[in-house]
Amino acid sequence: MKVAEAAGRARQAARRLAKADGSSRSEALMRMADRVLEEAEEILAANGQDVEAAKGRGVRPSLLDRLQLSPERMKDMAEGLRQVAQLPDPIGEVMERWRQKDGLWIEKVRVPFGVIGMIYESRPNVTADAAGLAVKAGSAVVLRGGSDALRTNRAIVKALRAALRETGLPEDAVILIDDPDRSAVDDLLTAKGLIDVVIPRGGAGLIRHVVETATVPVIETGVGNCHLYVDRAADPDMALSLAVNAKTQRPGVCNAIETLLVHEEIAPNFLPKAVATLRDLGVEIRGCPRTRELVRDVAVASEEDWATEYLAPILAVRVVPDLQAAIDHINRYGTQHSEAIVTEDREAAEAFLREVDAAAVYHNASTRFTDGFQFGFGAEIGISTQKLHARGPMGLKEMTTYKYVVRGTGQVRP
Amino acid sequence: MKVAEAAGRARQAARRLAKADGSSRSEALMRMADRVLEEAEEILAANGQDVEAAKGRGVRPSLLDRLQLSPERMKDMAEGLRQVAQLPDPIGEVMERWRQKDGLWIEKVRVPFGVIGMIYESRPNVTADAAGLAVKAGSAVVLRGGSDALRTNRAIVKALRAALRETGLPEDAVILIDDPDRSAVDDLLTAKGLIDVVIPRGGAGLIRHVVETATVPVIETGVGNCHLYVDRAADPDMALSLAVNAKTQRPGVCNAIETLLVHEEIAPNFLPKAVATLRDLGVEIRGCPRTRELVRDVAVASEEDWATEYLAPILAVRVVPDLQAAIDHINRYGTQHSEAIVTEDREAAEAFLREVDAAAVYHNASTRFTDGFQFGFGAEIGISTQKLHARGPMGLKEMTTYKYVVRGTGQVRP
Repeated sequence: MKVAEAAGRARQAARRLAKADGSSRSEALMRMADRVLEEAEEILAANGQDVEAAKGRGVRPSLLDRLQLSPERMKDMAEGLRQVAQLPDPIGEVMERWRQKDGLWIEKVRVPFGVIGMIYESRPNVTADAAGLAVKAGSAVVLRGGSDALRTNRAIVKALRAALRETGLPEDAVILIDDPDRSAVDDLLTAKGLIDVVIPRGGAGLIRHVVETATVPVIETGVGNCHLYVDRAADPDMALSLAVNAKTQRPGVCNAIETLLVHEEIAPNFLPKAVATLRDLGVEIRGCPRTRELVRDVAVASEEDWATEYLAPILAVRVVPDLQAAIDHINRYGTQHSEAIVTEDREAAEAFLREVDAAAVYHNASTRFTDGFQFGFGAEIGISTQKLHARGPMGLKEMTTYKYVVRGTGQVRP
Repeated sequence: MKVAEAAGRARQAARRLAKADGSSRSEALMRMADRVLEEAEEILAANGQDVEAAKGRGVRPSLLDRLQLSPERMKDMAEGLRQVAQLPDPIGEVMERWRQKDGLWIEKVRVPFGVIGMIYESRPNVTADAAGLAVKAGSAVVLRGGSDALRTNRAIVKALRAALRETGLPEDAVILIDDPDRSAVDDLLTAKGLIDVVIPRGGAGLIRHVVETATVPVIETGVGNCHLYVDRAADPDMALSLAVNAKTQRPGVCNAIETLLVHEEIAPNFLPKAVATLRDLGVEIRGCPRTRELVRDVAVASEEDWATEYLAPILAVRVVPDLQAAIDHINRYGTQHSEAIVTEDREAAEAFLREVDAAAVYHNASTRFTDGFQFGFGAEIGISTQKLHARGPMGLKEMTTYKYVVRGTGQVRP
């Protein structure tokens, strides 16, 4: 289906969905979970074909792993839908309400976006996650997944649409753009008036293309060049524990750290032990000149390293003369995702929390907490790294907008 | 000054501004008001040159009126700055605060955007309004006004920067791009990483160019193709009073109505009298076939009329068979700005308020209330017609973003 047709249908579905109550939207998600499991065999067969075709094209093992489904992953997919179904309904909440002198009542009411465009790469679980979150938030969704996963996504979307139909909701609330032509992505990005917001999920290249092409408003997500700064007044044991957690607990995700900044006064005591521990855990270290004086056999960190999101067990290390230098480094090279300071000095901590420009700033805690579940929001559609609309984990509330509802008795403007 | 240099300086200024307290930001605005009056002679002289040059180019009288300043308008400009100075400081507000099971404290804190880009047309008062709102909201602003007003804007910005300097705040918090080359606009729109958000103010052509060119996030403002729907169950006197107010109180603004929709049952009684009254007030009527049967000498409303924001004393009129047709017409032709229903039927009103997709929806009140002052927010930077970030009047709060501040005692993610 072409984008214009799909988006037009999604718009109609969104209008119907906006009238549906929260319980029927939740019911649809529960039914989606059932359907995904009922049709698991068909979905896994389609996925098998996608995986074979990708192998034939010589796709990297890490991408194959993202693409591949299993009965276990199908269960997780269904479980994710059920969890979202059970979250409180965000729609209809009266966020503020006041009465004007002339008797007008003004309410600020949370309402659905309308039609959300999702552009993502090979993980087919995003298909179910995004559809579930969108429908729960009262919006229709137009999905454009990676071409590697086209057969899988078709099978998943078929199950999701069947569930909508069975619940009496419009099946066009979930539409897959299965036109493999790359121009379909750009059609989606420029479908102004049909698509209300585009959320890209993927690597830096995808995000850049979306931002450069879109005329529809975009929420940027995900690229995380995150830092941990070990201050002069840090507890060295805590600092090491946080560095290990933020780097190694799951190196391939956006809220893992990529660079460790260390105050020059604490560096001689802290760095040798820290590097040894991290190396034991399989982390490659790349350092600034001072780091390389303090620790043996450290490779040179180049200018490019400071700007790189490795998403791998590699850590750049830089010794800085003071707190301000750490803040300046982060504001220059960071991607405004998650940034942490370790210190027992309250004043230094507050300066860092205030002056570092990022979605989430941490004092004495791991950057790995920037996550919808960890923050208590439930499932998230992504982690926003821009300042417009939503910053950080985007849960159901962040997938809505609002309108002003004004009730009068004939008031006119004098 | 080139955009890259200006934006870089503004970024530095924004960092310093983020550390300044609310009282010094307010003081700067009070000083800006003084300075604008102290330098009124110089500003008016520059404006005189701009106006003469515009006359020489044969600019339309309505544009000349927008461009022209007077001692009276200078006083209004200063008064506007003083009013914004006295609004509550939006920065630092803890919007939410909670404690996780593991002891982490998470705060959602209101923080400045950073650097705001403003692109606008000939009104030079926008220069002072935007600078005042931005600085009060803790952000630096890069201004690009219309080339017609270049001398005027230079003189105003000189006064504003002097006020910042005198208050001990960075003068680069307010920077004018005075490069008359049109490419400067596009440089501003693509200054990703330097500019955090662009807010255009102007006609539909300007807004379209901004949306199509920008890679920096944009908040669309202002285009208002607004409607009043007179329901079957409307009080006809109230309906006429609202139509007159919404069309004629100030026809050149975005929240004035452009189309009147009338239920077919009430049309025979309502329309002849309403059209007569509106015509007496100088309004030209363009109607659908049924309107032209009911009222004499009404010009034909074409498809284009339904989609036009006249910003002039012209009103399109359409008779509709029912409430749903009115809602469908508005959702098709409207610009999601301000939409009203007149009815004594509560159910019809609630359906309209729910199903019409717009920033502000009204029951028995004039669309002219969609305005920062009327809503009680104080001055506004514009009226957003998009769904991302802010909808409707954008006051100080809507000119901010937030960050999550997380304080721990060494917590790691399990």
